[in-house]
Amino acid sequence: MTVNVGVIGVGMIGKDHIRRLTTVLAGAGVVAVTDVNLDEAKRVADGVPGALAYATGQEVINADDVDAVLVASWGPTHEEYVLASIEAGKPVFCEKPLATSQEACQRIIDAEVKFGRRLVQVGFMRRYDANYRAFKAVVDSGDIGAPLMMHATHRNPSVPGYYTRENAITDTAVHDIDLARWMFGEEIVATRVLKPRRNSLGGELEDPLLLVFEMSSGALIDVETSVNIQYGYDIRGEVVGESGTAALADFSPVTVRRNNQFSGRVPQDWRERFLAAYDTEFQEWIDGVRDGGTYGPSSYDGYAAAVVSNAAVEALHSGDRVDVELIDKPPLYA
Amino acid sequence: MTVNVGVIGVGMIGKDHIRRLTTVLAGAGVVAVTDVNLDEAKRVADGVPGALAYATGQEVINADDVDAVLVASWGPTHEEYVLASIEAGKPVFCEKPLATSQEACQRIIDAEVKFGRRLVQVGFMRRYDANYRAFKAVVDSGDIGAPLMMHATHRNPSVPGYYTRENAITDTAVHDIDLARWMFGEEIVATRVLKPRRNSLGGELEDPLLLVFEMSSGALIDVETSVNIQYGYDIRGEVVGESGTAALADFSPVTVRRNNQFSGRVPQDWRERFLAAYDTEFQEWIDGVRDGGTYGPSSYDGYAAAVVSNAAVEALHSGDRVDVELIDKPPLYA
Amino acid sequence: MTVNVGVIGVGMIGKDHIRRLTTVLAGAGVVAVTDVNLDEAKRVADGVPGALAYATGQEVINADDVDAVLVASWGPTHEEYVLASIEAGKPVFCEKPLATSQEACQRIIDAEVKFGRRLVQVGFMRRYDANYRAFKAVVDSGDIGAPLMMHATHRNPSVPGYYTRENAITDTAVHDIDLARWMFGEEIVATRVLKPRRNSLGGELEDPLLLVFEMSSGALIDVETSVNIQYGYDIRGEVVGESGTAALADFSPVTVRRNNQFSGRVPQDWRERFLAAYDTEFQEWIDGVRDGGTYGPSSYDGYAAAVVSNAAVEALHSGDRVDVELIDKPPLYA
Amino acid sequence: MTVNVGVIGVGMIGKDHIRRLTTVLAGAGVVAVTDVNLDEAKRVADGVPGALAYATGQEVINADDVDAVLVASWGPTHEEYVLASIEAGKPVFCEKPLATSQEACQRIIDAEVKFGRRLVQVGFMRRYDANYRAFKAVVDSGDIGAPLMMHATHRNPSVPGYYTRENAITDTAVHDIDLARWMFGEEIVATRVLKPRRNSLGGELEDPLLLVFEMSSGALIDVETSVNIQYGYDIRGEVVGESGTAALADFSPVTVRRNNQFSGRVPQDWRERFLAAYDTEFQEWIDGVRDGGTYGPSSYDGYAAAVVSNAAVEALHSGDRVDVELIDKPPLYA
Repeated sequence: MTVNVGVIGVGMIGKDHIRRLTTVLAGAGVVAVTDVNLDEAKRVADGVPGALAYATGQEVINADDVDAVLVASWGPTHEEYVLASIEAGKPVFCEKPLATSQEACQRIIDAEVKFGRRLVQVGFMRRYDANYRAFKAVVDSGDIGAPLMMHATHRNPSVPGYYTRENAITDTAVHDIDLARWMFGEEIVATRVLKPRRNSLGGELEDPLLLVFEMSSGALIDVETSVNIQYGYDIRGEVVGESGTAALADFSPVTVRRNNQFSGRVPQDWRERFLAAYDTEFQEWIDGVRDGGTYGPSSYDGYAAAVVSNAAVEALHSGDRVDVELIDKPPLYA
Repeated sequence: MTVNVGVIGVGMIGKDHIRRLTTVLAGAGVVAVTDVNLDEAKRVADGVPGALAYATGQEVINADDVDAVLVASWGPTHEEYVLASIEAGKPVFCEKPLATSQEACQRIIDAEVKFGRRLVQVGFMRRYDANYRAFKAVVDSGDIGAPLMMHATHRNPSVPGYYTRENAITDTAVHDIDLARWMFGEEIVATRVLKPRRNSLGGELEDPLLLVFEMSSGALIDVETSVNIQYGYDIRGEVVGESGTAALADFSPVTVRRNNQFSGRVPQDWRERFLAAYDTEFQEWIDGVRDGGTYGPSSYDGYAAAVVSNAAVEALHSGDRVDVELIDKPPLYA
Repeated sequence: MTVNVGVIGVGMIGKDHIRRLTTVLAGAGVVAVTDVNLDEAKRVADGVPGALAYATGQEVINADDVDAVLVASWGPTHEEYVLASIEAGKPVFCEKPLATSQEACQRIIDAEVKFGRRLVQVGFMRRYDANYRAFKAVVDSGDIGAPLMMHATHRNPSVPGYYTRENAITDTAVHDIDLARWMFGEEIVATRVLKPRRNSLGGELEDPLLLVFEMSSGALIDVETSVNIQYGYDIRGEVVGESGTAALADFSPVTVRRNNQFSGRVPQDWRERFLAAYDTEFQEWIDGVRDGGTYGPSSYDGYAAAVVSNAAVEALHSGDRVDVELIDKPPLYA
Repeated sequence: MTVNVGVIGVGMIGKDHIRRLTTVLAGAGVVAVTDVNLDEAKRVADGVPGALAYATGQEVINADDVDAVLVASWGPTHEEYVLASIEAGKPVFCEKPLATSQEACQRIIDAEVKFGRRLVQVGFMRRYDANYRAFKAVVDSGDIGAPLMMHATHRNPSVPGYYTRENAITDTAVHDIDLARWMFGEEIVATRVLKPRRNSLGGELEDPLLLVFEMSSGALIDVETSVNIQYGYDIRGEVVGESGTAALADFSPVTVRRNNQFSGRVPQDWRERFLAAYDTEFQEWIDGVRDGGTYGPSSYDGYAAAVVSNAAVEALHSGDRVDVELIDKPPLYA
């Protein structure tokens, strides 16, 4: 059985997912697309055999042959489309953020809980990265003892001029926030944001930042975000356990010896680093939809990421330690 | 368009490819299967929606809805099925070996040349491994200068009791033979086989071996085969250029610090090391079939591997340097 | 010319330095020793040709044939012996701490400034470690841009039962405090101490800790102290610059492939990691004394380490950010 | 007690050893020097307090205050000075080669055996390198099982114009020959030399070479010599055991992340790589002389290196496998 997907939003990321669904993954097809730019939606539909362009997201969601919905539109529209998908009883994959406020996230949770079955998956793709999975497997194995700390870095070569210091939290570190919860299997209860010396290569942007998260067990996670570090896209992490540590290895297939150096490659950008993770993420989503389940990051995960991000932005502004307060996790997400 | 594949041979590897074609790759389906054990073929067909079991490979090849053929049967049957596929004008993927003698390989080349278009791809999957591709890209970039040597290791934790010293060449090093030709873009012109001290953990087997290949440019490639080395499946290689070297990096996603060590994982077996390469190999084959081309390792590559293997077995027996003599490469394979 | 050293304190570390001065280094000799345990001092003197045991440190310092003094006695006695050495106009090497209060450190500075020439060197041996020197050289080269952050770990396999959480700062992190100042070439202006989840393998000890130091440039340094981590003595550091980073490499001479792992060794203890640094430290001190200069960590460095340690202990107790206030550096130490 | 050394030959290496003996090591001094260039010997003597210049090596050897002799003169003179030192009953350290023919080496052995006690040490300094010692310790521990093979590389950035292909064996690989015997604790029984494609950056020089040594146990050792590889001085080795392998780790103190790479440094030349090994070599020699023993590489080791080098040169010329025939090792060297 082929899972027929309706795609809302055909910008860069929507187009990439259409390519993935039609030419990379097994068991998936794209039958409906829409976009705020309808002409663009039509052009994209023309290139996908069997796909039609629709004027609105609502029409895509309600099209009879659409089995599942992919929301890749502008963030502020996510809530509306996710709620409509739940209303239609159709599985929906929503690129991050789940919604642009924690209240909106909570409304989605409420709707899904009311519906009585999980339909929503949020696009935290790092959980699908083979290296992160191996990393978590070592931590979970108990080989390093109980986890006490994690040190992480999230480095980008550069960011566009409109990127603000708040983006470093809501767009960049939001991945680390989700990972912290996933790696440790517990919630974040407080956060602070420290401000190192400013990187002059990023103009007036307050960059880098050092975020600290306190977990419910007392474990501490520190995350360096450096978004103008020039040299590459470098995602690293080390979990410190009671009797050992585990760390992501460097992600380089070749060692070159040249010019008095041996060297490996640092990825240029998130595509190079996480392309395969997107493939895995969507294959598992498609398989889950076909088999009647949805197993990835949930609405609650999207909600928690929003709440923690908000707290971290507050901590960035105030310089203080800020408590994180989450609603109890509904049993649906246990 | 879906490429409908007919599968000849549903042993372990045939079953794995069926799983791959039906649940991993985009654009492929399995519509026909056969096996020397017909009951087994029927059981497999029952598990694949739309697939039928046929009594013979010939029937699979000739079935109207079969667009392309996958030969995963016992080696001695390969020639017959590949020739029949060429006769039927259908693309055929043949697991290694292409055929069990160099004469048989030559008959396949003759048939394909007569047909006038490439139809045959041979299953040398290492060319599809992301790490090997990055490795070759560095060598081809010229960054290390002209390649002069390559040092390679092919290590297996253990082999079954029926494995002979000749298998170390025809089944194990045959991958390295293909890689040598692919990495260097030239032919092997001579070979010798040196015999180190015997590994007592392999019983009476003459293991390890040190194979040396001379390329047409004069470049030398040495390959250690160690097939009872216990510690893992360890495939390594370093190309020595005029001004630098390039080497496959270790294939480990996590670094663990424990018990006075920092360590990474060595793969347990070829599945762990090359699983993703099989996926890529078949996706590219399916895409090639759909688009009317076939781009992977050719009949000529299968033939060359057979000729070099034969020469290496002779060198193993004689202790001498043995010349490798190949027919000229037909323009079809240029 | 041989530099004749008088040694005050012949405990474990004093004995090791006597061995170093007499059997490892060029140009040094030991001619006088003393210890609170006079019998032990006599036994040690008996084993060193030409050395005499004296009843007090004052006698050692004032002995005619003593060119330079090594203070390796109990911390609370350091001030007295260092001041007496300055009084006698003799170069003095003082194991850390320079003194047990910042006021005492200041009295030493005052005496040395009054004397008008540097005589005192403090035993911060990491500055003499070849790896740290190469690390600093990369940072100083400008290759990674201006330094913005440093992440460091200071891990011990275990500590004795009398070790307190304050020791984690005053005995363990004090090295990192000196290194921070040395690596960045600037002063620490504030500190905080965060408390991760407690390591149950250390009993009730509050361990690990995460120390944060703010430098005068705004650069941030975070230091993990983990003193019951079992797996080894692991000293690591990464400086984050504007366009790159530099990190200490693992300190392992051999890579072993065994049991599905490739691995390197983590040192067992500080001896394994820093033994060579002690040799370099003392050779340079001896050479400096012979040539009429003293070039290593100064009284001011010992003073600054004391002030920062005190502030960090206060931060540990209060949970707050604590300012560090240093006297201006006298020109003698420029 | 100070060991007073007489130095024969004050070229680059002789001067460096004088610096080492007088300013780095404990317990050594230089009291006599000579050189074929007597004026140079006088200039050097003037810079070393207490040292005299002599007109001939014989006078140095026979000077009353000379406890031990260091031969760092031109290779063809080694035999004469070593024999004279034995005649005088004085310990002698001889830089490689021990002598320029295997017959001359044998004459030295005969003289030393007749004298009845070991006096001669040959300058194979790699045995004193900390990394090689750790490497050998892993092999000797049995952790990787019996050693079956060793792969080694000996790479130089470039060589002077007068360097010949024979030098690649007698000056370059001679270190690997000694190491093979030392690492495996057995003799080399045969050798061959294979000729890869020529490195055009070395002009007409036949470079690189691939040397193969057969040990008495049947173990095989292959050594790549590349002497114009530009990128650095890169000494590597991996011993392949029955159940694992051990390899020299890269020799880099710092990892730099910059320009899309993480990288470590490859040494520029043998000084950078082996400077500390020379210090250890001489300190142990001085200590051995003082304590009445001499424990390093012996005359027999120098002899064996000469015989194997000769066989390898013959193998280079003939292209054939050449047997190595050694005299039985006299009990003095057991």
